[in-house]
Amino acid sequence: MTNPTAAMLVIGDEILSGRTRDSNLHHLAQELTRIGITLTEARVVADQHDRIVDAVRALSVSFTHVFTSGGIGPTHDDITADAVAAAMGATISHRPDAMALLQAHYDRAGLPFNEARQRMARIPDGAHLIDNPVSTAPGFRLGNVHVMAGVPNIFESMLASVLPSLTGGPPLLSQSLRLLRGEGDIAGPFGALAAEFPDLSMGSYPFNQQGAHGTNLVIRGIDPARVDEAMLRLTRLFG
Amino acid sequence: MTNPTAAMLVIGDEILSGRTRDSNLHHLAQELTRIGITLTEARVVADQHDRIVDAVRALSVSFTHVFTSGGIGPTHDDITADAVAAAMGATISHRPDAMALLQAHYDRAGLPFNEARQRMARIPDGAHLIDNPVSTAPGFRLGNVHVMAGVPNIFESMLASVLPSLTGGPPLLSQSLRLLRGEGDIAGPFGALAAEFPDLSMGSYPFNQQGAHGTNLVIRGIDPARVDEAMLRLTRLFG
Repeated sequence: MTNPTAAMLVIGDEILSGRTRDSNLHHLAQELTRIGITLTEARVVADQHDRIVDAVRALSVSFTHVFTSGGIGPTHDDITADAVAAAMGATISHRPDAMALLQAHYDRAGLPFNEARQRMARIPDGAHLIDNPVSTAPGFRLGNVHVMAGVPNIFESMLASVLPSLTGGPPLLSQSLRLLRGEGDIAGPFGALAAEFPDLSMGSYPFNQQGAHGTNLVIRGIDPARVDEAMLRLTRLFG
Repeated sequence: MTNPTAAMLVIGDEILSGRTRDSNLHHLAQELTRIGITLTEARVVADQHDRIVDAVRALSVSFTHVFTSGGIGPTHDDITADAVAAAMGATISHRPDAMALLQAHYDRAGLPFNEARQRMARIPDGAHLIDNPVSTAPGFRLGNVHVMAGVPNIFESMLASVLPSLTGGPPLLSQSLRLLRGEGDIAGPFGALAAEFPDLSMGSYPFNQQGAHGTNLVIRGIDPARVDEAMLRLTRLFG
């Protein structure tokens, strides 16, 4: 696997307390798989400066891309921009272009562009803004770290504007076979087949839905001919 | 916050490829919050030995408890038990009590207790088994690492049998106020209130549902009197 790699960092007490169920990881995973970037790790940390700094540092040196969600709003617990700046050794200030975007947005809405809202224009120096078509307050990319909002529809719209700028490898293809047999029944020959195709990834996922008990066997790889070849073998084994 | 801490480690390619949406983190977060254990970090890693070993080592030295999900089935990609043993410096073998449990289970089902199924009795030496009332194959606790299945109903049933053995602190209480106002409107006074109550955690979560745009303000803490006092102040500010 020589595709570029990525990590996600979900930032927010509300995920770890069980108040909110994260959905951005699943969305990011699907989008990256589609464009041939391998999501290799994800972390969730609380809204604490040092924890965010440590995670951003660890992930940004280990992976091609890092994507963060959460903590870029106007309230006191929104500390992601400052923590990412600290992690990457950048200074941070109220950026004039972000200030102008937000000023125009709140002028149109007839709302005061107060000190709290101005916090959302705090962007690390040297970062590139990420467009927010939903609520204007921008995300940013600093080095290989893409900083985005936690609210799902804003996260998704920011990601949509980032994806075209990323260079992926060949997309990871996936085929699956659904069997009404337990994993233990098929594990031996399935493992032997996986060993014959070291360039592919083969996984087995048991299910138990509406009284049906069985296993989904999944074959993933970037070479369509190899995936087809393995799938044919799999179907002969168990079909 | 002096409550015990915890981390979760989700193990599985299928989460990172976007094939499967994890739900165990959310369940664990809610259960731990209820019993006064602070879930402080979560990680998701692929089914790769070294990545699991590194994550288990890092988390087990940093937190009171670690909970893992995934990778304890009978197939070749189920490598969690061996990786956890390696991370904790334990040997691993087919444990007689786990073998006996599984043998009896497959005898009752009239299914062969083959080599693949016997893999599920590989348990690190010195571990305590975790009961699996759904499908028998046990989880285990080794040191402070609780190893459980990834299938949600099995994860949940294993966790239910683990929770009574854990000593939590006072449960984290939470009260919230739903406002039809933007975060930027309330951020200033809300931040000032949070600064007056450093023993509490205050968070702000914007929502945009069915045309209603607003903010949920949440106050969390372990002292009911302090949470009530802060909530009263909050209601006076914005109610």
